[in-house]
Parts: sequence; structure tokens; C-alpha cells
Amino acid sequence: MTTVQKSLAEFLGTFWLVFGGCGSAVISAAFPEVGIGLLGVSLAFGLTVVTMAYAIGHISGCHLNPAVTVGLWVGGRFPANEIPVYIIAQVFGAIAAAAALYWIASGNPEFDLAVNGLAANGFGDKSPGGYAMGAGIAIEVLLTFFFLLIILGATDGRAPVGFAPLAIGLGLTLIHLISIPVTNTSVNPARSTGPALIEGGIALSQLWVFWIAPIGGAILAGIVYKIVGGSGQDIVGTEG
Amino acid sequence: MTTVQKSLAEFLGTFWLVFGGCGSAVISAAFPEVGIGLLGVSLAFGLTVVTMAYAIGHISGCHLNPAVTVGLWVGGRFPANEIPVYIIAQVFGAIAAAAALYWIASGNPEFDLAVNGLAANGFGDKSPGGYAMGAGIAIEVLLTFFFLLIILGATDGRAPVGFAPLAIGLGLTLIHLISIPVTNTSVNPARSTGPALIEGGIALSQLWVFWIAPIGGAILAGIVYKIVGGSGQDIVGTEG
Amino acid sequence: MTTVQKSLAEFLGTFWLVFGGCGSAVISAAFPEVGIGLLGVSLAFGLTVVTMAYAIGHISGCHLNPAVTVGLWVGGRFPANEIPVYIIAQVFGAIAAAAALYWIASGNPEFDLAVNGLAANGFGDKSPGGYAMGAGIAIEVLLTFFFLLIILGATDGRAPVGFAPLAIGLGLTLIHLISIPVTNTSVNPARSTGPALIEGGIALSQLWVFWIAPIGGAILAGIVYKIVGGSGQDIVGTEG
Amino acid sequence: MTTVQKSLAEFLGTFWLVFGGCGSAVISAAFPEVGIGLLGVSLAFGLTVVTMAYAIGHISGCHLNPAVTVGLWVGGRFPANEIPVYIIAQVFGAIAAAAALYWIASGNPEFDLAVNGLAANGFGDKSPGGYAMGAGIAIEVLLTFFFLLIILGATDGRAPVGFAPLAIGLGLTLIHLISIPVTNTSVNPARSTGPALIEGGIALSQLWVFWIAPIGGAILAGIVYKIVGGSGQDIVGTEG
Repeated sequence: MTTVQKSLAEFLGTFWLVFGGCGSAVISAAFPEVGIGLLGVSLAFGLTVVTMAYAIGHISGCHLNPAVTVGLWVGGRFPANEIPVYIIAQVFGAIAAAAALYWIASGNPEFDLAVNGLAANGFGDKSPGGYAMGAGIAIEVLLTFFFLLIILGATDGRAPVGFAPLAIGLGLTLIHLISIPVTNTSVNPARSTGPALIEGGIALSQLWVFWIAPIGGAILAGIVYKIVGGSGQDIVGTEG
Repeated sequence: MTTVQKSLAEFLGTFWLVFGGCGSAVISAAFPEVGIGLLGVSLAFGLTVVTMAYAIGHISGCHLNPAVTVGLWVGGRFPANEIPVYIIAQVFGAIAAAAALYWIASGNPEFDLAVNGLAANGFGDKSPGGYAMGAGIAIEVLLTFFFLLIILGATDGRAPVGFAPLAIGLGLTLIHLISIPVTNTSVNPARSTGPALIEGGIALSQLWVFWIAPIGGAILAGIVYKIVGGSGQDIVGTEG
Repeated sequence: MTTVQKSLAEFLGTFWLVFGGCGSAVISAAFPEVGIGLLGVSLAFGLTVVTMAYAIGHISGCHLNPAVTVGLWVGGRFPANEIPVYIIAQVFGAIAAAAALYWIASGNPEFDLAVNGLAANGFGDKSPGGYAMGAGIAIEVLLTFFFLLIILGATDGRAPVGFAPLAIGLGLTLIHLISIPVTNTSVNPARSTGPALIEGGIALSQLWVFWIAPIGGAILAGIVYKIVGGSGQDIVGTEG
Repeated sequence: MTTVQKSLAEFLGTFWLVFGGCGSAVISAAFPEVGIGLLGVSLAFGLTVVTMAYAIGHISGCHLNPAVTVGLWVGGRFPANEIPVYIIAQVFGAIAAAAALYWIASGNPEFDLAVNGLAANGFGDKSPGGYAMGAGIAIEVLLTFFFLLIILGATDGRAPVGFAPLAIGLGLTLIHLISIPVTNTSVNPARSTGPALIEGGIALSQLWVFWIAPIGGAILAGIVYKIVGGSGQDIVGTEG
């Protein structure tokens, strides 16, 4: 595939992740009486990755996340020179998705950006459950560490072929089941950037945490997986 | 397979999609205290596709949706001459399912068609969350676009073999998790037609939107997938 | 495998289906504030089949259901002479499971068999949602028809290898998502017999419906699948 | 793989199981209005196993549970001499996870260890639903028996390749759907030990039950599977 095709795939895939995950949170989570709740939002985030990994995995490898791109590079599965274009495409996809979500949500006369928000990430006063910054940083590092461990393991040449998208997507569901109350769950700097730019305010001022913590956890995982059992096999679809 | 066998498969499959999806909504979604909610309905719609794709994928390709049939044709995966018979079978299956659901729901003494409906699609006053027509059209175009992208990608010859039914069915679950409050989620003109014909009234007067928007999104996806990375591989089961 | 091994596998598998499905309903569905609801019960029933199909599919074919055994015979996938021993093993497994569930549920001081029951099937006054007998029979015939269509299709030699347990188990989840309010969902005469024998009373007097309707739907599916596209391939594991 | 690599994999995997499962329970289950409930917790426990089985199955076999290690040995799938190091790694992983969860949960100003706990297992007064000790022991033996049956069957050489992690992980989800109200669900002595050590008190005094009952059920399954249909095939990844 050409770099343009890979970039377009990452743009569309990250758009889907943010529109689907944040969209389900904004539109459906608290719908009266029959809302999907945090369980439904967790499932939605995970399914954006399951679906895109089967749809564009053979085009770009389906990272959709700067922390994944960096972690795969540390783990020896992705070339350094492609990192910038991947991250740029991911961030633009996330911003476009947040803008589209804002426009559609505004089709509901009761929607108010200042009150409802766009599912941005946060800590302290901006944490859904009121968790402090230390807990927020710790859980983002820890969960991104395990997310990358799952990605590096499930795409290892010795793991069963074809199941990685399920393992990775359902891993993201699990991560949300644990941590939405803490930070609204990022583990993905692009996913944090889209809503924060549209919301502005506190979300934007806290955005740095959701770049540093996930990327920190991802780097750690790249190192640890090499020790625990990494064989350096190529991830499916990234070598194309 | 013969055209009669393919048509019968599409008829049965679309019956299952509408009976299962709309049936879970009408019968189980708001059951007191333990109802399945929008999350359960989303899962039900997706599982109709997962189950039928494994059951009849090798017979008809399991489209169950005029937008899918048109989108696959634009993407170069389906012959134009079979489009009419597929769409007719799908629409008849959907109407039969809505009629069967109406009959069974009426076995509940408290069921009232005018009040409970049959999970028809709508916007404005007929939108579950009161979303305006513009938002309804936009989200139907957008979600059908991504639905077809998932279908075209997951059935691409370079994607893992056998997983497409999971990716596509769970994609439909995800689409419902996002958008039931907006339009009750169509992305499928046949699914919209069955309940609208039985319900009549507003649902029927708004039906045109749920033919134009999904098919528009599907055509767009057929074009975009060719650019992003389409290889024009045949979808499993449609060449038979 | 020997007939004894197959029978033991069907006994254990049907025990698991009834203990897991009815157990989740009795123990967890209405747990205060955080209960799993009908969605959780639907998932539990389906997962008993997913798990057992991977665990004992290579031993007995994992029918766990007299309607499945009869439907597979009609569809040309199962020998007539093994039907009786399969059905006997299934019914005994279901009875043992209902007895075990009754004993464990009684470990809760607030459990009362007359009030809480064991998730038996029923219609009319015994239908969770008050659905009449006609609706109950119709939906049991219809859903078992589609259940067998899924089984016959997903185990067809032309369907992807290895995915049938997922398609079939998740099909059972879908069936429950639709119909628990109508009959508490049977589609399985053995599953109905276990709790009805322990509960006695109305459940026992209505039991005949849950033998006739599911088996009727299964026979119909065996015939229809041959027309729509059956190739008469052997189901995995039953030929052993 | 070396013994150090296997131990490290079991340590990390069991950390993930306890942090993810108990973490979702402590942080998200009862979140106001949109909490994930027992259904979400059940899904979380299962997904820790699905994700780790794909990630580290090729390194250590991904037991994450002393009862699994013992049951696989009885079933002839695991060498006796590796049992101690596996169990030690699992227990340390569980303790580290409980400690990390305690630290992160304390980032919520309203968290109180004495009130909220860390999702420890228990019976009698410590059972979520008030179930007596006899019922608690019985269900732990029974569910671990079936859990091992699923593991032994799904990793049998005659079962479809690659699906075992899904069958086993979703089996753990099913087990939780049934039994959280009874004992908070253990079927895993390591998972019980971590939170009990941090909580202390009643949880610690009842801990012996959650070592004896699961291991008892696992031993029974190892024996029964050999009778029903075991072929003594190696489990994927443990022979390395």
C-alpha cells in the first residue's frame, strides 16, 4: 500500500473509533430508562477496533492510536520513519470525528455542549468519579501497558492467525469496563485530542496527561514484551 | 446456487434480521426492571447478521439489506443483474417479519400498535430522542458508509478468512449502540420498510429518508474503498 | 467415540446448559441494583452452548437439545438409531441440573421455590409478560425453526471451519433476547423438562407445548434447509 | 520459553485477571445510573482471560489460576515439576494487582476499604446474596469442574484450532453470570488470595474454602475428561 492509502485508512479508522466510542457515550449512554450505560460504551469502543481491524488491518495495520504506533515501534514491529504520518492522520481523524459528533448531537434540541460535553478525558473535577490526578495517570499508564502487551502478543507470529482483532478490540472494551469512572478512559492520545479541542476549557488544559501517560505505558510494554517472550515477528498488515 | 435458492435465503435472512432486531425491541427492551434496553436491542440486531452470515453466507452472500447489495455492486463485488431480485426478496422478508411480529406481540393483552409500534425508524417527532431530520439523514449516511467499509474490508481477499460475519454483525451492533436515539437506526431500507408498512402514519411518510440515506452512504463507501485499498476481491459466497 | 462417551457428554453438556442458563436467571437476574437482567440471562444461555460446543463438539456433536437431535436427523446429518439415547441423556442432564440448582438456590435463606421458581417455561398466566398460548406456540416454532437453520447452515461443509459454536451459541443468545417475556424461552424440550419436574404445578401441566412446538419447528427447518441450499454435509463431530 | 519467561507471563497475566476483574467490580459496577453491574463485571473477568490467552498463550499456556494448573496436570497436559513455580507466580501477580487496585481506588476521595472492599470472595455474611457455606462450596466445586472441562475440551487436539481462548474466557464470563451473588465467584485460588490479603478480616478467614473447592473441582474434571473423551493431546503453548 502507498503512504497515502495507509494515512487515509488511519484517518478513517480513528474517525470511526472516536465517532463510535464517544458518540455512543454522548448519544446513548444515559438515554432514559433503556440507556446503554458504561457497559454499552465500553462495548462500542471495543467494537470500533474489532470492525476496523478486520476492515483495514491489511491496509495500514489499524493502529488508530499514537500510543500503539509508538509501542509497536519500540517493540520492533513498526518503522520509525512512518510514525509522524500515522500520528498526524490519527489526530486529524479524531478531530474530524469530534466535530461531526458535535454537529449531529446538536440535532437534539436538548443538547448543550457545556453541559453534556463530547466524552473528553479528564481527572480531578473532570473525572467522572472524582478521581485524583495521580490515580488517573497511574491507571492510564497501567492500562496502556497491558493494551500494548495484548497487541504485541496477539499479533506475534506464534499466536493463532486471524484472532488478533478480536483480542485487541475486546481488550479495549475491558479497559473501558475498568476505568471510565477514573478518567473517562483514554489510552489513546488521538481519542483524547478530538473532543478536548472541541470542548476546550478544562479538557484542553488536562490534555497533556493523555499524551504522556499512554505513550509512557506503551513504551514500557514494548520493552517488557521483548523480555517476556517477544520473537520480533511482524504485525500483520504493517509490512505491506 | 440457483437464483431461487439465493432469493429464498435472502428472504429468510432478512425476515430473521427484522423479526429478531425489531422483535427484541418491541418485546424485551423495556420489560419492567430486567429489560434488555438499547444495549440488548443493539446486540440482537448484530447477532441476526452474525448468525445468518454463517448460516447462509455460502448460499446468497447474506446481504439482507438493499444498501449492502448496492454498495457491493459499486465496490465491484456483485453483478448488477442480480440486484433487483435480491432487493425484492429482502423487502418481502422484512414485511413478512413485521407482520409476524405484529401477530405475536398482539398475544400480549397490553400491546397496542398505536402506542408501542413495531420499532419503525423516524426523525423529528418520530425520533426516539427528538433529533431533527438533518441529524437523522447525516447519521444514516455516515453509519451506512462505515458499515459498507467494514463489509468491503472484512470480505477482502487479504483479510483473515472466516471472521467477516463477526466483524460485520458486531459492526451492526456498534451502529445501533451509537444511533438508536437518533433514528431508531436503519442503515437498511428493507428493515425500515417492514415496520413502516404495518405501522403506517408518520413512519410511512418518513420512509423515503431510510431508502435514500443508507443507499447514498453505501455508494460512497464503494467508491472510497476502491481508493483506500480495495483489491476488487470477490466476496465469499456471492460468486456461486 | 463410544455410545457411552457420547451419552455422558450430552448429559454433562445439557446439565451445563440448564444449570448455567436457569441458574443465572434464578440467582443473578434480579439481584438488587446490579442484576444481570434478561440480557445477562440471554448471554448465559448462549455461552453454555458456545463453551460446550468447543469442549465436547468432537465427542458427541454437542446437541444438548432433543429438537436439535431430531432436526439434524431430518436434515440428513444424524443417524436415526442414536436419537433415543441422545434424548434420554439430555433429559437426565436437565433434570439433574434443575435439582442441583434447587439445592444451591436453597442456600439463600430468602429463596422460596413457590415464589422464585426455577426459570421454567410457560404461557398465559405462566408467561413472564402474560402472552397467550397461541403466541407462545408460534414463537417457539418460529425460533426453533431459525435455530436449526443456523445450526444446519453453520455446520455445512461450505461454511467457515471452527465458527459454528459461536454462530449457534450466539444464536441462542439472540433467541432469548427476543422471547424471554413470551415463554421464558425454551426452543429445547430437555431444558423445559428439568425445571418443570422440580417446580411441578402449572409448569408441568404446560410442558407438552415445549416438546411439540420446538420439535415441530426443528423438523420444518430440516426440510427447508435441504431446499434452500443444503448439501447434506456431515456435522462436525457426529460421525465419530 | 525459559522458566523465568513463563513465570513472568503468569505473573503479568494473573495481575491482569485480578486487576481487570476486581477493578471493574470496585470502580465501575455500581457507578450511579450507568454502572456496568454484575453483567459488566462478568464480561470483564472473561475478557482478561480472552485477551491474555491470545497474548501469552504461546509463552506460558496462560493458566493464571492454580486450579487450572492442577487440573491440567491431572488431565495429563502439564508436567508436575512446573506446578510450584506457576502457582507462586500466579499468587504474587494477584497480590500485586490487589495492591495496585487499592492504591488507585484510594484516588477516589469517597473510597473506603472497610466499606467498599476489593471484591474478595466469601460465604455466609460475606456472600453478596447471603448464601450459606454449603452452597458456596458446592457451586465453587461445580463451576470449577465445568471450567476445567471447557479448558480440557477446547484445547483438545480435535477441537478447532485458535478458538480455545474465546471458549475459555467466555466460559469464565458465564461462570460469573451465574454465581457472583453466591460467593462473588472465585474458581481461582490466586484471584481469591490477592484481595483477601489486602482486605484481611473475614475475607482472609474464609480464604481456605477458595483454595480447596476450586482445586477439588479441577481434579475431578481432569479425571472425568479422560473418561468422557480425552485423548491426552497437549494444550497449545505449554509444551514450549
